[in-house]
Amino acid sequence: MDEEKPTAVLLLSCQDQNGLVARIANFIFERKGNILDLSEHVDSQGKQFSIRVAWDISNFTIKESQINEAFVPLAKEYNANWKICFLAKKIKTAIFVSKTDHCLHEILWRYSQNEFNADISLIISNHYDLEPLARQYNIPFYVTPITKETKLDQEQKQVALLKKYNVETIILARYMQILSSGFIALYPSNIINIHHSFLPAFIGRNPYKQAFERGVKIIGASSHFATKDLDEGPIIEQDVVRISHRDSIKDLIRKGSDLERLVLVKAIRLHTQHRIIVSGKKTIIFD
Amino acid sequence: MDEEKPTAVLLLSCQDQNGLVARIANFIFERKGNILDLSEHVDSQGKQFSIRVAWDISNFTIKESQINEAFVPLAKEYNANWKICFLAKKIKTAIFVSKTDHCLHEILWRYSQNEFNADISLIISNHYDLEPLARQYNIPFYVTPITKETKLDQEQKQVALLKKYNVETIILARYMQILSSGFIALYPSNIINIHHSFLPAFIGRNPYKQAFERGVKIIGASSHFATKDLDEGPIIEQDVVRISHRDSIKDLIRKGSDLERLVLVKAIRLHTQHRIIVSGKKTIIFD
Amino acid sequence: MDEEKPTAVLLLSCQDQNGLVARIANFIFERKGNILDLSEHVDSQGKQFSIRVAWDISNFTIKESQINEAFVPLAKEYNANWKICFLAKKIKTAIFVSKTDHCLHEILWRYSQNEFNADISLIISNHYDLEPLARQYNIPFYVTPITKETKLDQEQKQVALLKKYNVETIILARYMQILSSGFIALYPSNIINIHHSFLPAFIGRNPYKQAFERGVKIIGASSHFATKDLDEGPIIEQDVVRISHRDSIKDLIRKGSDLERLVLVKAIRLHTQHRIIVSGKKTIIFD
Amino acid sequence: MDEEKPTAVLLLSCQDQNGLVARIANFIFERKGNILDLSEHVDSQGKQFSIRVAWDISNFTIKESQINEAFVPLAKEYNANWKICFLAKKIKTAIFVSKTDHCLHEILWRYSQNEFNADISLIISNHYDLEPLARQYNIPFYVTPITKETKLDQEQKQVALLKKYNVETIILARYMQILSSGFIALYPSNIINIHHSFLPAFIGRNPYKQAFERGVKIIGASSHFATKDLDEGPIIEQDVVRISHRDSIKDLIRKGSDLERLVLVKAIRLHTQHRIIVSGKKTIIFD
Repeated sequence: MDEEKPTAVLLLSCQDQNGLVARIANFIFERKGNILDLSEHVDSQGKQFSIRVAWDISNFTIKESQINEAFVPLAKEYNANWKICFLAKKIKTAIFVSKTDHCLHEILWRYSQNEFNADISLIISNHYDLEPLARQYNIPFYVTPITKETKLDQEQKQVALLKKYNVETIILARYMQILSSGFIALYPSNIINIHHSFLPAFIGRNPYKQAFERGVKIIGASSHFATKDLDEGPIIEQDVVRISHRDSIKDLIRKGSDLERLVLVKAIRLHTQHRIIVSGKKTIIFD
Repeated sequence: MDEEKPTAVLLLSCQDQNGLVARIANFIFERKGNILDLSEHVDSQGKQFSIRVAWDISNFTIKESQINEAFVPLAKEYNANWKICFLAKKIKTAIFVSKTDHCLHEILWRYSQNEFNADISLIISNHYDLEPLARQYNIPFYVTPITKETKLDQEQKQVALLKKYNVETIILARYMQILSSGFIALYPSNIINIHHSFLPAFIGRNPYKQAFERGVKIIGASSHFATKDLDEGPIIEQDVVRISHRDSIKDLIRKGSDLERLVLVKAIRLHTQHRIIVSGKKTIIFD
Repeated sequence: MDEEKPTAVLLLSCQDQNGLVARIANFIFERKGNILDLSEHVDSQGKQFSIRVAWDISNFTIKESQINEAFVPLAKEYNANWKICFLAKKIKTAIFVSKTDHCLHEILWRYSQNEFNADISLIISNHYDLEPLARQYNIPFYVTPITKETKLDQEQKQVALLKKYNVETIILARYMQILSSGFIALYPSNIINIHHSFLPAFIGRNPYKQAFERGVKIIGASSHFATKDLDEGPIIEQDVVRISHRDSIKDLIRKGSDLERLVLVKAIRLHTQHRIIVSGKKTIIFD
Repeated sequence: MDEEKPTAVLLLSCQDQNGLVARIANFIFERKGNILDLSEHVDSQGKQFSIRVAWDISNFTIKESQINEAFVPLAKEYNANWKICFLAKKIKTAIFVSKTDHCLHEILWRYSQNEFNADISLIISNHYDLEPLARQYNIPFYVTPITKETKLDQEQKQVALLKKYNVETIILARYMQILSSGFIALYPSNIINIHHSFLPAFIGRNPYKQAFERGVKIIGASSHFATKDLDEGPIIEQDVVRISHRDSIKDLIRKGSDLERLVLVKAIRLHTQHRIIVSGKKTIIFD
């Protein structure tokens, strides 16, 4: 898909009914849009319809600002969950980090390569360690030190910052704090976490140590949307790497951190290109 | 996709134009078909449009036997390459083998599990070795011994057999003979070969020996449509496995034969589910 | 390694001490053995020494039957766990199955290719379904139907069969029964199971259903030694395959069964070539 | 292996003979070394013996500076190719780059994490583009602009720089120039290149374009020692990633550059930990 053309993306899911694709395709065709990429999926029970359509709006007969409104009647008729986004409009994004740099490093380098359809507006951390890295890329860096007592207060400050920057999506790039459920509820399906294990194996603390002690032959990393249940959110992407008895915990951490980086940036790319529909506890990925 | 519903599949490619998806979706909707699965792709130059649509024809208002005719005007208008197939109609298939059994073994076992949308009508070999295996699965087995002198004559006999059984698709399951270009021309994009290397590396004879001598760290297998240029046909599927200096040529053959089996059956599954469009020297795979 | 030479294999582990490799290498060299393959490992805490040595005994100055006795003093000195095996002596093996055939099919086909250093002496099942497959390969097949009430009695019959055939190693090739801890204690580190998940994820029943419901993006299979704690034994080998939201549970079962087959036969190959040391809850694999 | 202990590493290959392991192990044991890690390999023809031994020299009875001399008689007796290195002595390394930054970025970040047993002494480029990146890590950066006419002259300047810094190993991190055979001969088995294809497929220019046009389903990257024959040197490490018809050449470049980074740093790690023996056109990797 040539993303340099002005492009709209519809993500929609609803109960399956006849004629849905035709209705959507007609909506686009009648307004002189050209479909660039379309994927449609009906689940194996034949009940849930999901679709991603990207179309060229160069010659669209209605303005970008009016497309959403124009689509409302169709969406209502099918009682659909949906959104229409424009690839030219980058997603305002915040990154939360702690002390380890590998994920932030990877994200910022790719950001400098224009790999994401995102504006990284600010970085928030509970420590000062990664401030120099943020400065290299000229991204505002805020520190909100967290203790048990101050956590909810600090979250208030974080939310204020996020609002100030109009942030839509939050990346937890090895941010070692657990967010409150109140915080998470503010950004449904918009907080992306990386967990350093092959979920659902090794939930919680020290997954590499757990993996080492269990003697698994393969370790993994999983990117998922944060929900109020820790490490239980809808999984976006996972990957694995082979290990052996020769690998120490330190080796697992090293090998795993390569996975974490690549899995997290893949999840960010999918999310910022509007390729993910959350469906219950699972995701549908149009890649 | 629940394939137990009576299902039609359209595979179509043509020059990209506005409204193609809408026209196709309307064709289905107006006749009371329900789209189960749709994937559409426009190449990165924005020129070539390709689509696979599967739809439920339980309530279709025109008979199966008339669907092709009904679609002709639309296809002509866009000057498209296309076919409409029905999943209930199994593809009549012949398997060509020589002496090694691993691919045939795998195909027949999966066939017994109903994994392919195919009828394996007969097996043709230049040797008698695999006749007992064919007999276990009650499949007719014909031997056409090949020498340089007899090759073209024997191919005539093979073609006669294929016609007798109304064969549409041929699987070369480690058939060690090179088919004449005349033979290949009879079954365009319908002869599936497995080559025991990661194409285009190690074309031709003894790829495992070539790989051993080059000292590669990964070997592969490639399934492709046979064309008159040996090992140059459109690739359907490839896979690889890691090797090391500890592996002898014998080990490469053993590890590689696992790849060959799995890659070939994956190609057969894709082909028999009508998931492949051949586009020049390449394939578009809707999986 | 050219295994056609008469070859002895030592597997040994003990507390690490200076000079262990020298002592073992000297033991072999002084008796005119030629080391073909040696791997040694000291764990990352520097405490546990493990070694596998394979040596050519063509010109060994002591008889095969006396090698074990000759090694006893050295082993005692280091208080080692050890065994010396001979590749020419195939391991007497029983396979336990239930109704599904894919693992048995794979094992028997590879057995026919001489891939394992094993004699498959008998097959035991709680159902008659796979008797025809056993007969194709001329392997005795015994049925011991299991109910809650008869389980321990039937295990007695199974043990009697295993003793009759001098079985050393048991392969649970998707045998759906849980063995009693008494049974398992008779064959320590000699019962190989295949679990159809990426352990420790999805322990217990219906792992594919569990995986489907959790929405993982990768599924796996794990081969491990059976211990009294279900699915908790030392892992020998694991592998994974990518899935997507498009895969139904049926697709997961199909994709997973390919993993199960390949992971299980890899574990059997490692075990019968004496490449595994069990160390607590983990394995050391010399491959 | 706990590399914090002072450690010597022997890499040795010669014609296979009885007693080699015993002789080497005794050499270490008699001088109070403790073997931490040993791997030995005899090729499948039973002719070529290769070994890597790492041992703790904390209590070694001869000084580090005299170990090589002490080993000479044994090595001569077997007419062996060998070297003894010390992990505490970091390998002086130069990196050659051109304009693209992904490999250099990865190397320098890992270098900052102490992942390599190397000192990166200088970076040489034919362009100024990556000077800022070098400066971030405080590494001297030299520019030697290359034209057809100036190439050999500039190589003289490069060699002078390498000598000034006592460089032992050169990393070609997407340096787009072809080194003269005279230059290469100065650093046998010490120039590591990354080629952006799965060698031997797509040798030469624009491998991603070649891969795109051939329609392969998997692309790769290969790290190898540079020899006078372009892309023909002994392969150290390879890896692959799956692609589809949906990927444009730009996508291939993006996906491939992740491979290039990871494959190259893996090769550097193996080389700087003295885990590679070059044997003819192939490598033996002790990992």
